[in-house]
Amino acid sequence: MTEKAADRRSFESTDDNRVAGPLIHAQQIVFDDDIGLELGGRLQAVRCAYETWGTLNQDASNAVLVCHALSGDSHAARHDPQDDPGWWDDLIGPGKPIDTDRFFVVCPNVLGGCRGTTGPGDINPETGKPFGADFPQITIGDMVTVQKQLADHLGIYRWRAIIGGSLGGHQAMSWVSRFPRCTDVCVIIASSPRLTSQALGFDVIGRNAIQTDPHFYGGQYYDKPRRPDTGLAIARMLGHITYLSTEVMEKKFESDRHDPREIATSFEQRFSIGSYLAHQGQKFTTRFDANSYVTITMAMDLFDLGSSRLQLMETFGDAECEFLLVSFSSDWLFTPRQSRDMVNALTALDKSVTYAEITSPRGHDSFLINEDIRQYAPLIQARLGDLDQEPHQISMVESLILDEIPESASVLDLGCGDGHLLAELKRRGHQKLVGVEVAQSGILKAGSRGLNIIDYDLNEGLPAFIDNQFDVVVLSATLQAVANVEMLFDEMLRVGSRAIVSFPNFAYRELREDYVIRGRSPKAPGEFGYEWYNTPNRRFPSIADVHDLCRQKQIRLVNEYYFNASTGEQVRADQDPNLNADTAILVIAAD
Amino acid sequence: MTEKAADRRSFESTDDNRVAGPLIHAQQIVFDDDIGLELGGRLQAVRCAYETWGTLNQDASNAVLVCHALSGDSHAARHDPQDDPGWWDDLIGPGKPIDTDRFFVVCPNVLGGCRGTTGPGDINPETGKPFGADFPQITIGDMVTVQKQLADHLGIYRWRAIIGGSLGGHQAMSWVSRFPRCTDVCVIIASSPRLTSQALGFDVIGRNAIQTDPHFYGGQYYDKPRRPDTGLAIARMLGHITYLSTEVMEKKFESDRHDPREIATSFEQRFSIGSYLAHQGQKFTTRFDANSYVTITMAMDLFDLGSSRLQLMETFGDAECEFLLVSFSSDWLFTPRQSRDMVNALTALDKSVTYAEITSPRGHDSFLINEDIRQYAPLIQARLGDLDQEPHQISMVESLILDEIPESASVLDLGCGDGHLLAELKRRGHQKLVGVEVAQSGILKAGSRGLNIIDYDLNEGLPAFIDNQFDVVVLSATLQAVANVEMLFDEMLRVGSRAIVSFPNFAYRELREDYVIRGRSPKAPGEFGYEWYNTPNRRFPSIADVHDLCRQKQIRLVNEYYFNASTGEQVRADQDPNLNADTAILVIAAD
Repeated sequence: MTEKAADRRSFESTDDNRVAGPLIHAQQIVFDDDIGLELGGRLQAVRCAYETWGTLNQDASNAVLVCHALSGDSHAARHDPQDDPGWWDDLIGPGKPIDTDRFFVVCPNVLGGCRGTTGPGDINPETGKPFGADFPQITIGDMVTVQKQLADHLGIYRWRAIIGGSLGGHQAMSWVSRFPRCTDVCVIIASSPRLTSQALGFDVIGRNAIQTDPHFYGGQYYDKPRRPDTGLAIARMLGHITYLSTEVMEKKFESDRHDPREIATSFEQRFSIGSYLAHQGQKFTTRFDANSYVTITMAMDLFDLGSSRLQLMETFGDAECEFLLVSFSSDWLFTPRQSRDMVNALTALDKSVTYAEITSPRGHDSFLINEDIRQYAPLIQARLGDLDQEPHQISMVESLILDEIPESASVLDLGCGDGHLLAELKRRGHQKLVGVEVAQSGILKAGSRGLNIIDYDLNEGLPAFIDNQFDVVVLSATLQAVANVEMLFDEMLRVGSRAIVSFPNFAYRELREDYVIRGRSPKAPGEFGYEWYNTPNRRFPSIADVHDLCRQKQIRLVNEYYFNASTGEQVRADQDPNLNADTAILVIAAD
Repeated sequence: MTEKAADRRSFESTDDNRVAGPLIHAQQIVFDDDIGLELGGRLQAVRCAYETWGTLNQDASNAVLVCHALSGDSHAARHDPQDDPGWWDDLIGPGKPIDTDRFFVVCPNVLGGCRGTTGPGDINPETGKPFGADFPQITIGDMVTVQKQLADHLGIYRWRAIIGGSLGGHQAMSWVSRFPRCTDVCVIIASSPRLTSQALGFDVIGRNAIQTDPHFYGGQYYDKPRRPDTGLAIARMLGHITYLSTEVMEKKFESDRHDPREIATSFEQRFSIGSYLAHQGQKFTTRFDANSYVTITMAMDLFDLGSSRLQLMETFGDAECEFLLVSFSSDWLFTPRQSRDMVNALTALDKSVTYAEITSPRGHDSFLINEDIRQYAPLIQARLGDLDQEPHQISMVESLILDEIPESASVLDLGCGDGHLLAELKRRGHQKLVGVEVAQSGILKAGSRGLNIIDYDLNEGLPAFIDNQFDVVVLSATLQAVANVEMLFDEMLRVGSRAIVSFPNFAYRELREDYVIRGRSPKAPGEFGYEWYNTPNRRFPSIADVHDLCRQKQIRLVNEYYFNASTGEQVRADQDPNLNADTAILVIAAD
């Protein structure tokens, strides 16, 4: 790598395409009516700057609202090839996952911002001077109020989708909690119902740095020769560290730790990370306003939809839309656990929800990065109606399982893989269908079919679901991989009226012969190529073993099927299936 | 909980006992000779403040050096019951793990500090004013140079032990890398060979906050009416967040997030964490000097023993001492992975080392907290000669294993449990003995016997050890729990000339009968009370299965023993052990 490339590489950040100049494609609207604020006070003549892509169709049913994050603005994507890059170019554009040839995309700058929409830098009509730190404390809800005014102005009464990451996710959540019928689809990425205490702490420190900057002047610095750039740069440096995963930080700074790139700065430059942070901090001050930073971070910090499941259920109880939530494994600022808290409330409410935790080393920034967008974009496309229509194959086992599922029954499929069983149920007209899967390829495939898939580990039980939520719970060809069997059985029968469990029979004749004659650990059928020392399976029950467990747990056997998967021959219950069948399907219910 | 108690609880930190007043027990020495500094320059008439406990014995062989962390000082423990508390009271004192009735404990304030030892606040003889920011850049090595001068002064030429956490661990590492014969024991807690890039980034930001404080005056603020307290408070706030685990942060601030305690501060107080940080930040400024903070953090940031195993091996190659390393699972500032990097270098050098990763929710602070000290203290006591002498029981299987181990052979015991096999080998005179164990209770018990125990997960292989490091590797009654069997076999025969593997035989007659007659999943002998659905074991090989694997991998069978563990009867190789023995011991070697 040339030195120049190395320099560029080490300074590369997801924000390097942010420009400080005017947003030439931004439109503006000034609202006639005052905006009443949630914490008190009003704002007059609020101006909203926004950009749009594509064309609103006749019945205004194809509008997609894109909500930007803390340091973002209305320029989510290019308008033409010569345009400045947008912050979500990989997601939005002609033929892109959010296809501007099909959808009318709207991206407004948030209230309190400094990129066109009314914010602390604007003139306070009562004083004739900029608001500065006297700009009223706004909330995410207030940002949404302004966006709603914009929607009314544009003739949009229901969004096709509202989508945002981080702070943008907060806005999306606020929309559907305040206006339950505002959208068909709500997409919440790398976000949370409230910040962690740690994230809150970092924000507090950042604001302290800004507000104690000698050039802050109580926020009235606009007519002064100097601005609180030092404090703002420090706040931004702190933010930067929180957006990067530890892995990314090691990659970026490990090899040249003691070789800082020389830049013009009065900040410390002893280490490569020092000059990087100085560069990022200073660059930020050329395009962002300190008062806006304070205002917006405070709104994020005040955002609190609740921390308990009940509170969250109350918040989203009336929402009439489909949800998609995405988190990233290495995001330590907006953690997967917080997304799961949201998901647990939505599933308990029987809302249509898909949730994927994308495996990524790139931290909170992931939602803006191409490699990660490529992973989660198909889920968005599916929610926007662009479904994977690949025909699905049903095995014999699955046919028998399907036969056991009553018409129009609600079904939870645990370890659903790529969702083909659920796809078949959907084809047959079943309405309430949910899959649980932990393998990312399965989740993305099933999600692309338009199914509701939850990215959960079955060994943690089924905390997402409430008692008796489903008519049928299916555990097909998955029992062997489960560590916590007893708990899962309890959970299945808590959540479902009945459960259908299929598994390979470990006491099958051929296996017994193998074992008895050869004295080798039996290899269950279907254990294609696995040996005793590398099989991913943990549990090797015989049919009799599972019957014993059910008896012990006073689980009622409703129905039973035994057969040889290879020949397709069924084995009757009086034909010693424990010896003669290689596969079993048990239908069970709580006693 | 009363309101007062709640107030106290939410503000409680491991530092709340720090006092700003004079250290009445500190002694001082001013050195005649200049101190030459590693990065250039010299300091004259360096003064070292220190405290001692206990009495130095006649041959000066009972001295323990305690090295403090960033914001610490010489007052590691009380000198009497009425004394102010010390920062490591739970560890140091009469009858405590570091027993001041037996040892002469010395704790000096570090060079560059502000608690008695020469630092930036002292007068520069060349200018007659305080050094300020002109204090030369010092290193951890320079801190150690001053400590060595102190040791010489006290007549101590070899320490019984050097012990430190965090920055204190850096000092301990620097001691043994520069003075390889300086100590019998080196204890390194919650530390690292160099900071992570993330930790470095946080330090850079903290220093930026201090140095851009309007009252910093290039470090020459001592005669000014105001000090750079704002910047120092902000730096401290940042440090605080990094010392706390996310779990602790949620516990401390979750329930009263929006109810800040009112305190006198100009910092933001909108949230409970805000007033906590403001309180902690401000309190710190009453007892710590900004220039010292800059100086010491920079020394920590410059500390770099290398990032590769080879570099670390070069650093510690000559060290002649026993090592003890301790990390904490939720410490995200000085991570367990970094401790493992150190351990991998020490084991490759055949150094005597014990390493434990203590499971704790309390983050980096853990090393100072009572509940965690109680976990790791026995390991320190063992290193100080206070061994657990509980007699150990040897089972029949283990007897046979012991018979297979040549006299004075070096042995690595994988999954060594509480170390009793190693204890027996030690009793029989074997010298080089190392255990690997992942269960904390086992590690602490084995460590308390004075054995070298490494806290590693066998499923990650044996990266700590080099080729042919041991005569014998033992895997006793552990094979069943291993996920990655093939890789472990390869590793065992890479690391050892031969391996001894004992395991229950899954094809034992009784199990086959059970299986064939009852059609139930066989329960291996010794699977006390476990069923198919909850056994922690993953692998169920028969003797024949293991022979097959060895054949396939061209592993040579050196010797074999088969028997019934319950009766003690041996089964000869020609007596169909695969059917008639419930336990096997195989001695294997690479072909």
